[in-house]
Amino acid sequence: MAVNTRRYTRATAFVTKGRLEAFSDGVIAILITIMVLELHVPRGTDMAALGPLLPLFLTYALSFVYLGIYWNNHHHMFHVVDSINGKIMWANLHLLFWLSLTPFVTGWMGENHFAPLPTAAYGAVMLLAAIAYTILQATIIRHQGPHSRLGAAVGGDVKGKLSAVLYAAAIPLAFVDEWISDALYVTVALIWLVPDPRIEARIAAER
Amino acid sequence: MAVNTRRYTRATAFVTKGRLEAFSDGVIAILITIMVLELHVPRGTDMAALGPLLPLFLTYALSFVYLGIYWNNHHHMFHVVDSINGKIMWANLHLLFWLSLTPFVTGWMGENHFAPLPTAAYGAVMLLAAIAYTILQATIIRHQGPHSRLGAAVGGDVKGKLSAVLYAAAIPLAFVDEWISDALYVTVALIWLVPDPRIEARIAAER
Amino acid sequence: MAVNTRRYTRATAFVTKGRLEAFSDGVIAILITIMVLELHVPRGTDMAALGPLLPLFLTYALSFVYLGIYWNNHHHMFHVVDSINGKIMWANLHLLFWLSLTPFVTGWMGENHFAPLPTAAYGAVMLLAAIAYTILQATIIRHQGPHSRLGAAVGGDVKGKLSAVLYAAAIPLAFVDEWISDALYVTVALIWLVPDPRIEARIAAER
Amino acid sequence: MAVNTRRYTRATAFVTKGRLEAFSDGVIAILITIMVLELHVPRGTDMAALGPLLPLFLTYALSFVYLGIYWNNHHHMFHVVDSINGKIMWANLHLLFWLSLTPFVTGWMGENHFAPLPTAAYGAVMLLAAIAYTILQATIIRHQGPHSRLGAAVGGDVKGKLSAVLYAAAIPLAFVDEWISDALYVTVALIWLVPDPRIEARIAAER
Repeated sequence: MAVNTRRYTRATAFVTKGRLEAFSDGVIAILITIMVLELHVPRGTDMAALGPLLPLFLTYALSFVYLGIYWNNHHHMFHVVDSINGKIMWANLHLLFWLSLTPFVTGWMGENHFAPLPTAAYGAVMLLAAIAYTILQATIIRHQGPHSRLGAAVGGDVKGKLSAVLYAAAIPLAFVDEWISDALYVTVALIWLVPDPRIEARIAAER
Repeated sequence: MAVNTRRYTRATAFVTKGRLEAFSDGVIAILITIMVLELHVPRGTDMAALGPLLPLFLTYALSFVYLGIYWNNHHHMFHVVDSINGKIMWANLHLLFWLSLTPFVTGWMGENHFAPLPTAAYGAVMLLAAIAYTILQATIIRHQGPHSRLGAAVGGDVKGKLSAVLYAAAIPLAFVDEWISDALYVTVALIWLVPDPRIEARIAAER
Repeated sequence: MAVNTRRYTRATAFVTKGRLEAFSDGVIAILITIMVLELHVPRGTDMAALGPLLPLFLTYALSFVYLGIYWNNHHHMFHVVDSINGKIMWANLHLLFWLSLTPFVTGWMGENHFAPLPTAAYGAVMLLAAIAYTILQATIIRHQGPHSRLGAAVGGDVKGKLSAVLYAAAIPLAFVDEWISDALYVTVALIWLVPDPRIEARIAAER
Repeated sequence: MAVNTRRYTRATAFVTKGRLEAFSDGVIAILITIMVLELHVPRGTDMAALGPLLPLFLTYALSFVYLGIYWNNHHHMFHVVDSINGKIMWANLHLLFWLSLTPFVTGWMGENHFAPLPTAAYGAVMLLAAIAYTILQATIIRHQGPHSRLGAAVGGDVKGKLSAVLYAAAIPLAFVDEWISDALYVTVALIWLVPDPRIEARIAAER
């Protein structure tokens, strides 16, 4: 009986993590997909009708890559998570909240051809999402201890800190020249496109 | 053969619960995400264009938290559920029905700057969702017996009853002063933000 | 080695069925949720603004119940399915195609206060979905043999045939009096609200 | 301890593949469903109101079948995949990106009654999705080696190459006569409707 209960709680603890992952995947999958609804079908059928959609298409592609990066990193992070608690759940929902505003700022920036305020708003949402991700990471490490696999894998988190600095810089710079901010957003995307080698190396080492 | 069949039915009973959880997670994930479609991209690109969106943004944040609480509590409740039946399935769909009206009342209340009737409608949908949750809980306990883990964990359900009372009060009070109702909605959210310690304690005790 | 491979293919066959179930659940969960987007947020904030929404709300509730029934029955049917093949996959996608038109006919019937043609169109989509469900069921039984658990559980399928007859009758009757058709739609929903006792009894017997 | 860790990493590697599949299923399920939102509910309630919807309905059905084919082939391909890496993840997201534009080109082509440019755009998105699928397939085979189960099952990939050629031909031909392109799109769909017998045969052989 005691053995059965222990096996049961272990199994459900595993399911619990799985349900959080599945929920997050669901929200990110929906976000990445409903963004395309902002690409309104144009009235005309000639090339001139597609022209105004170009900035929106580029913003859509950028946001798609960002959400893909978050999904990828989320995936990698929870790969080395064994169990979760209520605080981790809420830190995760907090991250999803800021990510859920991506379609809104994508549409606003894209439809207005990278005007200053929408460009700054895009950076603000991205900064808040990055901060939320850092909080989630810290919450998990606090739950598992600094010597846990995630704690060891993350270390100084240079990429995370650098991204936050670049977003913070892009917000005021959008009012100087919006292309500086756009260049910074693309730079952050490029920094993250490669999955975190620290965690990958750790997983490979364990095998 | 007999052993194999028994193992199979056990496995599928587990999958059955998993499929109900996955379906509920899917619906809640979609609801929490399509709500953002009510935040229509503004025409202008200055601060004045964002102003009218503020009440909608606040309502969106409140509804996001509410749906997060439902997901969290749903998660906790099914953590201690072993098997389900047809009645539990329909009680669960009944809960999802009222939750599915959240984007509608969120948009109506937010776009109309917390006017009395939309504010009362918001409370009515929340009250009906709270009642549906209570029915679902009671249906599960009836299926498992009052001495089941969920029955013992829920007990008097003070928080559930208090929330229903506050929602019921908020509906008429919206016609006196809508800010009283809004304050009540925020109060209910704060009451629930912490995951149910009764169930958490039970899970910890079993480990 | 041989044992490992056999174990692997068995595990993936199980996953394969799981992936079809998860995909179907995903589509049904999205359909049941995006239908609420047809409930457009009204401009006004008084009772008069809600009036025109009443038929749409009732249609939404009816379609919600229908999709819930399909999810429930789909769930029950695949409960007794052991493996799937390509034909079952396409029969399943065929069912999802007709179900995916539910939000469209729901919006058309609801916005036009149950006018004859939209009411008939609603019945036509429901009839085609019912036929698709019967085809899916027959495809699974052909794959598993008539003496399989599903074959034995389904039997003469009186409820399935009765539903198709009622839908087929409701289509022309919508041009006589649309309320006859609406009454038939509600009748079919009531027939199915109880999960199939034949399959439930079989599952209980096996335990 | 060493045994436990090995078992754990194997289990998570399996989950990792499962999470990629679940995410892809989620995105495809959402795409296949939100496409129906392009079928705007008509104002009128007579047959004349449905007329303009016919080309949109046919395009919707075609895109539904295409996405069904992608889901089906994706399913079959990952059936014989044992583990994934970062490159496979990004190759998969790249495929999902082009698929995510399906609702946009479906709406544009359908609403404009198969006008030349929208018809060519539909083919361009389909060609890019087909190329992305080929890249994903090649990335998996490179990861697993040419003698892997997928490498042996895919072989020369005649159907994949033929589809790309037909899409590439359909793009310029849309400006000659759009019906040629439409006929080519239907042809590609018919080629793929049957699930890949090479992989099915291999799975059957292993059993």
